[in-house]
Amino acid sequence: MNLGFVGLGLMGAPMTQNLIKAGHKVRVWNRTPGKATALSGTGAIQAESPMDVAGGAEVTIVMVTDSPDVEEVVLGDKGIIEGAQPESVVIDMSSISPSVTRKIAARLQERQVNMLDAPVSGGVWGAQNASLSIMVGGQREIYDRCLPIFDALGQRSTYCGGTGMGQVAKLVNQVIVAGTLAAVAEGLAFAAKSGVDLTAVFNAVTGGAANSWQLENLGARILKRDFAPGFKVRMQAKDLRLIQEAALEMQLPLLTTPLIHQGYVAINREGLGEEGTQAYVKLLERLGGVEVSS
Amino acid sequence: MNLGFVGLGLMGAPMTQNLIKAGHKVRVWNRTPGKATALSGTGAIQAESPMDVAGGAEVTIVMVTDSPDVEEVVLGDKGIIEGAQPESVVIDMSSISPSVTRKIAARLQERQVNMLDAPVSGGVWGAQNASLSIMVGGQREIYDRCLPIFDALGQRSTYCGGTGMGQVAKLVNQVIVAGTLAAVAEGLAFAAKSGVDLTAVFNAVTGGAANSWQLENLGARILKRDFAPGFKVRMQAKDLRLIQEAALEMQLPLLTTPLIHQGYVAINREGLGEEGTQAYVKLLERLGGVEVSS
Repeated sequence: MNLGFVGLGLMGAPMTQNLIKAGHKVRVWNRTPGKATALSGTGAIQAESPMDVAGGAEVTIVMVTDSPDVEEVVLGDKGIIEGAQPESVVIDMSSISPSVTRKIAARLQERQVNMLDAPVSGGVWGAQNASLSIMVGGQREIYDRCLPIFDALGQRSTYCGGTGMGQVAKLVNQVIVAGTLAAVAEGLAFAAKSGVDLTAVFNAVTGGAANSWQLENLGARILKRDFAPGFKVRMQAKDLRLIQEAALEMQLPLLTTPLIHQGYVAINREGLGEEGTQAYVKLLERLGGVEVSS
Repeated sequence: MNLGFVGLGLMGAPMTQNLIKAGHKVRVWNRTPGKATALSGTGAIQAESPMDVAGGAEVTIVMVTDSPDVEEVVLGDKGIIEGAQPESVVIDMSSISPSVTRKIAARLQERQVNMLDAPVSGGVWGAQNASLSIMVGGQREIYDRCLPIFDALGQRSTYCGGTGMGQVAKLVNQVIVAGTLAAVAEGLAFAAKSGVDLTAVFNAVTGGAANSWQLENLGARILKRDFAPGFKVRMQAKDLRLIQEAALEMQLPLLTTPLIHQGYVAINREGLGEEGTQAYVKLLERLGGVEVSS
C-alpha cells in the first residue's frame, strides 16, 4: 500500500521500518527533520509536511506523544486533513484522550476521511520486534481493511469498538500496568527493608498468585538496578494524567491510580523522566531509606 | 513421621489429609471439636489439647488465623509448649506478624524446641491439591529436616532466611497480590464505565505487559460475577493489617497498600468478608455507579 507516517520517534522510526520491510511504500514526516533524514537510507520517502504525507496515501499513520500533538499534525496548518483524499484512512497510534479522539474523527469525517484510533502496548522493544499489542477503535470495516498494516507492526490487534474505544482499552491497560508495577515496587521495598533474602523472596512470589509480567520483567530489573527504559517515566506520567482526565469526564472515582500518578509526577520532577517506569521504586526507596538490590 | 496438627479450618483440614495420604501419622486438635471429629474417618487421631497433640510428635504444625491465635495454641494454657519434647519442631504455617513469630520462637527455644515459620500462598485450592507455595524462615537444618512435610503439602517451598523471614516473604507476597488485584479491579471498572466491549479489552490486556495471575484468574471471575472465595476478603483485610503493622515497626512508609487496606476494611464492614478478594471491585462499582459484567 501507499502509506504515510507522521512521527518518527523511538516508536515511530522502527514501526516505519517494519512497514517498509513488509513491502509498503512509506512517505514520512517528523517535526524535527533530522529524524526523517535518518530513515531515508531505508527506503522511506521524505515529505514536506503532514499534508504532503497524506497527499498520495491510502492510509496515514500518526505516532506522536499527546493529544495536542495529534490535533496539531491532523487538524493544524498544513495538517493531514488538508492533504488526505476522501475515503482514505488516518490511523492514530499515539496514546491520547478518547474524547479528543472523537473530536478529531468527527472533523475528518466532514471530509469523508476515515479514522481509527489504534494505540499500542509493548514499548520500544515491541515496536522494534513487531510484537506490539494494538487496541483499535473505529468502524469495523475500516479495521478489517487495515489489518495488513497491524499485522506488520504487532503480534496481536484487537478490535474494541467504535471511535475512541482503542484509546479506552489502552488506558485500561495503563491503569493495570501502573498499578501492578506499583504493587511490585512496594512489595520489593518492604522486602528490602525487612532484610529478607531478595532472591529467595523473588523466587517464592513469582511461583504463585503474585506473579505478573511486571514482576517477572521489571521486578527482575529492579533487583539488578537496571533502570533502562522499556517505557519511560514521563510517558507513563502522561498516560496516568489521561486516565485521570477520562475518569473525571465519566465521573468515575478511582482509588489507587491517582496516588500512583502523583508518584510518577514526583519522580519525573526529580529528573528521572527518561528512565524506565521501574524507577517508580526509587520513590519508595527514598521514603523508606532503603535500596532494593539483590 | 509422627506429626501433630493444630487448626482444622478450610486450610488445615485438607492439609492434614494430604499428610495422612503421604504416610504420616497425625494427631489433631481444633478449637471447635466437631472439625476434628469430621477428620477421624480419614485416620487422624483426635487429641485433647494442643499440649496433647505435641506430646508424641516429632513435628507439630499450626494453621490458625492470626497472631493471638498462634500465641494461644503455642504458649497458652495446655499449649504446645507444655507438651513438646526437646529437639522437636513446631512449624507455624499461619500468616502472622514477623515480630510475634520471633517472640514465640524465642520462648520455644528456652525449652530446646525448634520453630519454623512457614506461611503459604495458594488458598483453599492449593491446600486441597497440595499445590501450595510455602515460604520458610528459621534454621536451615531444621528446614531441611522438614522437607518431606513441605513436599506433601505444596509444590514449592522456599527457604527465605532466619526466624520470621517466612512471614516477611508472605507479607511481601500479599502486598503484591493485593496491589495487583486492585489494579485489575480499577482497570475493569474504568473499562465498564467507558462502555467498551469488556471481553475484547480483557483479551487485549492479557496479551501484554498488563498480564498477571490476578488478571487471568480473578479478573475473569469478576467478568462472570463469580465472587466465590479462593482467598477471603476478611483474611486479606487481616494480612493487610499485618503488613501495615510490620511496615510501621520498620518505619517504612507505604503508598498504595494502606489505601487498599482501607478498601478491604470497607467491603468487610459491608458484610462481604466471606467473599473472595475479587469482591474488592464492588467498592469501585459502588463509587462509580457501574457494574463490571461481560
